[in-house]
Amino acid sequence: MNKFVVHQLLNHVLIMHPEQLIVSGKHRFTYTEFNLRVLKLANGLKKIGIKKGTMVGVLDVNSHRFLEMHYALSMLGAIIHTINFRLSPEQMVYSMMHADDEWIFVSDIFAPAVKPLWAKFPNWVLMSDNNTQTLLETKQAFHYEDLINNSEAKPLPEADEVQEDDIFSIFYTTGTTGEPKGIPYEHKTILTGAIQLFHHMALHENGASLSSRDVFMPLIPFFHIHAWGMAFFPFYLGVKLVLPLAADAAEQQALIEKEKITWLNMVPTQLQALLEQKDFGNIKVLTGGSPFTSGIAHRATKAGVKFSLIYGGSDQLGTAISVVPESINPDSPEALEWLRVGMRPFPLVEVSIRDKQGKEVPHDGSTLGSVWVRSPWLPKGYYKNSEITNQHYINGWFRTGDLGFFHPNHLIYIADREGDAIKSGGEWIPTGLLESIISEHPAVAQVAVIPHKSEQWGQRPLAIIKKKSQINDNDLVVFLMQKVEEGQMAKFWVPDHFIYMDEIPLTSAGKLNKKILRDQYSQF
Amino acid sequence: MNKFVVHQLLNHVLIMHPEQLIVSGKHRFTYTEFNLRVLKLANGLKKIGIKKGTMVGVLDVNSHRFLEMHYALSMLGAIIHTINFRLSPEQMVYSMMHADDEWIFVSDIFAPAVKPLWAKFPNWVLMSDNNTQTLLETKQAFHYEDLINNSEAKPLPEADEVQEDDIFSIFYTTGTTGEPKGIPYEHKTILTGAIQLFHHMALHENGASLSSRDVFMPLIPFFHIHAWGMAFFPFYLGVKLVLPLAADAAEQQALIEKEKITWLNMVPTQLQALLEQKDFGNIKVLTGGSPFTSGIAHRATKAGVKFSLIYGGSDQLGTAISVVPESINPDSPEALEWLRVGMRPFPLVEVSIRDKQGKEVPHDGSTLGSVWVRSPWLPKGYYKNSEITNQHYINGWFRTGDLGFFHPNHLIYIADREGDAIKSGGEWIPTGLLESIISEHPAVAQVAVIPHKSEQWGQRPLAIIKKKSQINDNDLVVFLMQKVEEGQMAKFWVPDHFIYMDEIPLTSAGKLNKKILRDQYSQF
Repeated sequence: MNKFVVHQLLNHVLIMHPEQLIVSGKHRFTYTEFNLRVLKLANGLKKIGIKKGTMVGVLDVNSHRFLEMHYALSMLGAIIHTINFRLSPEQMVYSMMHADDEWIFVSDIFAPAVKPLWAKFPNWVLMSDNNTQTLLETKQAFHYEDLINNSEAKPLPEADEVQEDDIFSIFYTTGTTGEPKGIPYEHKTILTGAIQLFHHMALHENGASLSSRDVFMPLIPFFHIHAWGMAFFPFYLGVKLVLPLAADAAEQQALIEKEKITWLNMVPTQLQALLEQKDFGNIKVLTGGSPFTSGIAHRATKAGVKFSLIYGGSDQLGTAISVVPESINPDSPEALEWLRVGMRPFPLVEVSIRDKQGKEVPHDGSTLGSVWVRSPWLPKGYYKNSEITNQHYINGWFRTGDLGFFHPNHLIYIADREGDAIKSGGEWIPTGLLESIISEHPAVAQVAVIPHKSEQWGQRPLAIIKKKSQINDNDLVVFLMQKVEEGQMAKFWVPDHFIYMDEIPLTSAGKLNKKILRDQYSQF
Repeated sequence: MNKFVVHQLLNHVLIMHPEQLIVSGKHRFTYTEFNLRVLKLANGLKKIGIKKGTMVGVLDVNSHRFLEMHYALSMLGAIIHTINFRLSPEQMVYSMMHADDEWIFVSDIFAPAVKPLWAKFPNWVLMSDNNTQTLLETKQAFHYEDLINNSEAKPLPEADEVQEDDIFSIFYTTGTTGEPKGIPYEHKTILTGAIQLFHHMALHENGASLSSRDVFMPLIPFFHIHAWGMAFFPFYLGVKLVLPLAADAAEQQALIEKEKITWLNMVPTQLQALLEQKDFGNIKVLTGGSPFTSGIAHRATKAGVKFSLIYGGSDQLGTAISVVPESINPDSPEALEWLRVGMRPFPLVEVSIRDKQGKEVPHDGSTLGSVWVRSPWLPKGYYKNSEITNQHYINGWFRTGDLGFFHPNHLIYIADREGDAIKSGGEWIPTGLLESIISEHPAVAQVAVIPHKSEQWGQRPLAIIKKKSQINDNDLVVFLMQKVEEGQMAKFWVPDHFIYMDEIPLTSAGKLNKKILRDQYSQF
């Protein structure tokens, strides 16, 4: 009866927006054509034995085939494991083994790279335009397009039996420590969470406002919470969807122009790359996932890019969104305030920031605490990992592992990861916030602040800088002392050491890889 | 963990929009003040013994006290029975007995009228500004404001224990036949259904588009699905809410001006009354619940009122919404098409129109069938009435009892109630559609079409007309023959008889009371 079930979205878009387009490379499908392919695919999958509860790994960039798999597996009640290809090879294999993937669907982009895995997993399907290409000369693999071409587009009776609390998907987080953690999501949880996120951006004035007139392109990969819900919402809304495949920044820019894309999601590093393109249209961007520096905000605003920042994650879905007006002069005094990204929780989401004793910190604009979250779309825990589940999912709340504080107006400021903050002489220095301030220097392209061992203070901040133009330690100290005078930071936050690198290592999610940096530089 | 629970909405609005206003007569509360009253009230209710599962009837117009009851009872896990005061006195008592109301909360407006019921129900609370007023000299009753004044505003531990599948409310439908039927709603169902409705109007271009800048006033009473969800959505959105109490059309008009109201809901008869006011601002109206005649549409559009029409009901919540552009020239040829109100189902809602054999009718713009609906927010059935539940809630679908057809573009047209359609010589005549066409005549204020017994044809249509200006049978026949020539209706739809009345009887929901009309005129 109650049906928050993923493939249910198809019924709506087919009836109301049958001619709307999905674009994927050289392919252009109407939603009607897309649905026919999904129905045939679902029948094809059924023939090869995929059924309710089958775990199916999919390894691809954001393509129409990957999207089709979402809906076809949903109809069968099977589970899609969106394989995180930005994990290290060892971690990726770990995730596929840990999820017990019974089938691996791999696109030709990734087929050569997974050669060493052929023996580890018995059942393979190659996703490719080119049916004659084989995964391996001797290895038997099905061809995705054969599954479609050899099947009828008839409805599956089991599609009606899928329940909203059945598991729809699993994906693995890309933490900077430990093994990847898998998070299973029910149909209902992933759908209500995704719908809530996009609805909110339609209702409230913000940089990434959206409507049924927008054209969408997800630069967040499907393995990150189904491109932050973009695998679902275009169907819900009936809008044109453009899938970027493996487009680089220049190709993304070309797509934006050609397909008249107005609404995108991406992490700040992707936005930074896009902003380096010469021509830039008037687009709306939802970004987040790593600290958003003032530097990027300035450049984006000057380039006519409107944006909102989302706070959330694979293990909590969307939690809060920045209160960014649609247009702001990045050089105005008010700009500084919102560039620090005050966040408003989504309705029905509660955020609690707690001290070590578990008591909510005062809403005073400075007291740091541990960020806890609860919401209707919180998952139940990590897959086959009750120990870490019990550390994070407690009494209906999720302990995020982030440090933050409340503004007196109750906006939330996320300052750092708990493991990243620096304890200097008994006082916390939030590295995320400090990075944001340092990034305001026009010669700084990217910055990571990590703790450096100190006999006297326990830890002191060390700043690792990727330069945009010539700069030295003294320039930075002068710049930061100015910020101290302006009351934006405490004097003891000014780093003792600066290191200059050509490229700062990033994690699979495009975040600063502080683990590598700490291993290398904390003790030098 | 998962918390689609009504009082959860308070947390959000308190943090993000604490100074926003709720206006109710001479009272003006911020959401912060409202919350303090709710907390005190919940503690007061607890003291008098109201607890999880207690059934509490509330009899009032749309007031702040009625709204407070929604949230205070939610915190206790008690159930609110929003008493339908437009039922006949016998039916109202029936609903209170059938729901097993343990407590009756009654406002001073209704207190005199319910005198005969004092003995029937043991526990009474009087909702009034005036604490000295007693319900009855000898009858012991609590005073609502005492419950608040004598209690602390402390959080209730049980509020955290309320589950999203607990029953939140029950209300009784006002069908034109049989006893009223009660429908219990879970927290999750009523919240997700309401949120979906308002979200949709924010996302899609339509007459009743809304945003966080709107000011809301519900003219739909709380006993109709909590004012079609307006008891919840202003909290979700953080907007100013104005409660009309018992305002008549002139007072509503004054409120709209004074409080700068931009967004209202109401049934077509209320809109008609409002349109008779001299001055009229630029407002957005969501309407529905009974056929929306072209006459009202024309007048509304000329008065600068933008509107959308919703299709749904107490036993299915919101199902579909009209595809009405924001502005349209009501005299244009296109206007006629949308005045017939093509409907688009909400995402995740499926509408199926079926013939007698249960097969979906062709989408040809004319084949009438029975309208079936399924959605994630469908209730499980009628309260303590498995027989009628089994007739309507079948295999996860709800049989609405409406007749409709699909346009070739898949828009849905609701033509009639199944019991109202006329079978003339073996062919259906949809009375709702016929009424809409007749109402386009400028001299027609209101029209009801009912079947009239015919030896030759079985049934023939009889039109009952409320005149706006002078008109006779011949004028109407000439007018309708013109519509026949234009291809808008079949010739055999033209009524054989016309009757003129000063006032056409309405049901408690403001719909044409065809039962009374049929009893009186079908056989004359």
